[in-house]
Amino acid sequence: MKLKVYVDRMSQPSRAVLIFCKVNGIDFEEIKVELSKRQQLSPEFRSINPLRKVPAIVDGRFKLFESHAILVYLASAFPGVADHWYPADLSRRARIHSVLDWHHQNLRRGAATFVLNTVLAPRLGLPLNQQAATEAEKILISSLSTIENIWLKGDGRYLLGGLRPSIADLSLVCEIMQLELLDGKDRDRILGPHKKVQQWIESTRNATRPHFDEVHNVLYKVKTKLSEQRSRTTLPSKM
Amino acid sequence: MKLKVYVDRMSQPSRAVLIFCKVNGIDFEEIKVELSKRQQLSPEFRSINPLRKVPAIVDGRFKLFESHAILVYLASAFPGVADHWYPADLSRRARIHSVLDWHHQNLRRGAATFVLNTVLAPRLGLPLNQQAATEAEKILISSLSTIENIWLKGDGRYLLGGLRPSIADLSLVCEIMQLELLDGKDRDRILGPHKKVQQWIESTRNATRPHFDEVHNVLYKVKTKLSEQRSRTTLPSKM
Repeated sequence: MKLKVYVDRMSQPSRAVLIFCKVNGIDFEEIKVELSKRQQLSPEFRSINPLRKVPAIVDGRFKLFESHAILVYLASAFPGVADHWYPADLSRRARIHSVLDWHHQNLRRGAATFVLNTVLAPRLGLPLNQQAATEAEKILISSLSTIENIWLKGDGRYLLGGLRPSIADLSLVCEIMQLELLDGKDRDRILGPHKKVQQWIESTRNATRPHFDEVHNVLYKVKTKLSEQRSRTTLPSKM
Repeated sequence: MKLKVYVDRMSQPSRAVLIFCKVNGIDFEEIKVELSKRQQLSPEFRSINPLRKVPAIVDGRFKLFESHAILVYLASAFPGVADHWYPADLSRRARIHSVLDWHHQNLRRGAATFVLNTVLAPRLGLPLNQQAATEAEKILISSLSTIENIWLKGDGRYLLGGLRPSIADLSLVCEIMQLELLDGKDRDRILGPHKKVQQWIESTRNATRPHFDEVHNVLYKVKTKLSEQRSRTTLPSKM
């Protein structure tokens, strides 16, 4: 039975799992769970993931959620996946776990909370919270500095000095990609000083093309819509 | 060269790593990094963990931080560790990763932020933040409900229906143990309704005795001190 992958392409961990499957030639069926329509609350999806979050997978009778756990499982269970994504070498593997563990309370917390409270909340029927955005921006900028100065230290193109990408590169880059939705000034202020981070995003995009842009296409469309809305609100008044 | 484990026993992930090493007969040297004396900021420790957090380990020339990554590494690299801690079976292992990933933004975020902002902040020279405590309590109670109703569903004594503990049991129980520092009323209100969680804490304590209580002893001492302080402040006045 084909692997089932439950995703909303507007969710950054969903995009990471989708890109991973496509790049590695894993035969899978993509099943859409639209968060804006609250489809994650349906009884059908609840039987897949009682925590009602995407992504989730079903492999035969085995159900799994949490994107990092999914990436580790897919890299281990599907024999066609190249070693660099999740190395068999224990110390290299351990350092990838270290980055993935760090991600949750740092980059993910900062980026997701910031984008939610500056851009996305109204689309989900939620209020914008300025204080939450301010706190999240600090965590986000500190996280980008850690990536720039610690995880990307050395000559490798990827995290931890890697010459080829791992599941940690894919997960973290997909997280950062949501900053595309920000107003250009905000994005430049936050990402601008982090030159290595910018190069690393491009390296990861190139290593996973054409799937990277194909899966991010929905994000690019929302970005265009938001830009049009912003330029309409800043047009000179006829008064 | 003996494994070096850098810890502060007042840190719950430090305690999880220490208990794991002791229960599994891993030969190691415990090196104290006292957070209350800001020893994690020293140049020596920075060369071990540039993020300046405990726990961290050095195994030969290999340095590693983030407690979940450390537990996975130790369970994989030390041949004497029983399979139940981190099963070789891919689907059981994947579900343990799923719990560990969930932990970061849920139980850990709720418990650590709540205890910091109700009890520990003054000991670390920080102000108590009532709003942060209120938000953290919601996350904490929701996380305990998830453990009670989802992760502890079924007949097993441990998470995911396990008959013996895994690294996820150890990590999550150590996180919850910091609630010992709360005022009795707060602790009863938060933990009281979660009967399965209470049984599971006892099961994990029993499965790892005597090391569990020995490593938690520092926490029990602080608990006694805090209780004495509370009873002094509620003594009838002589006025």
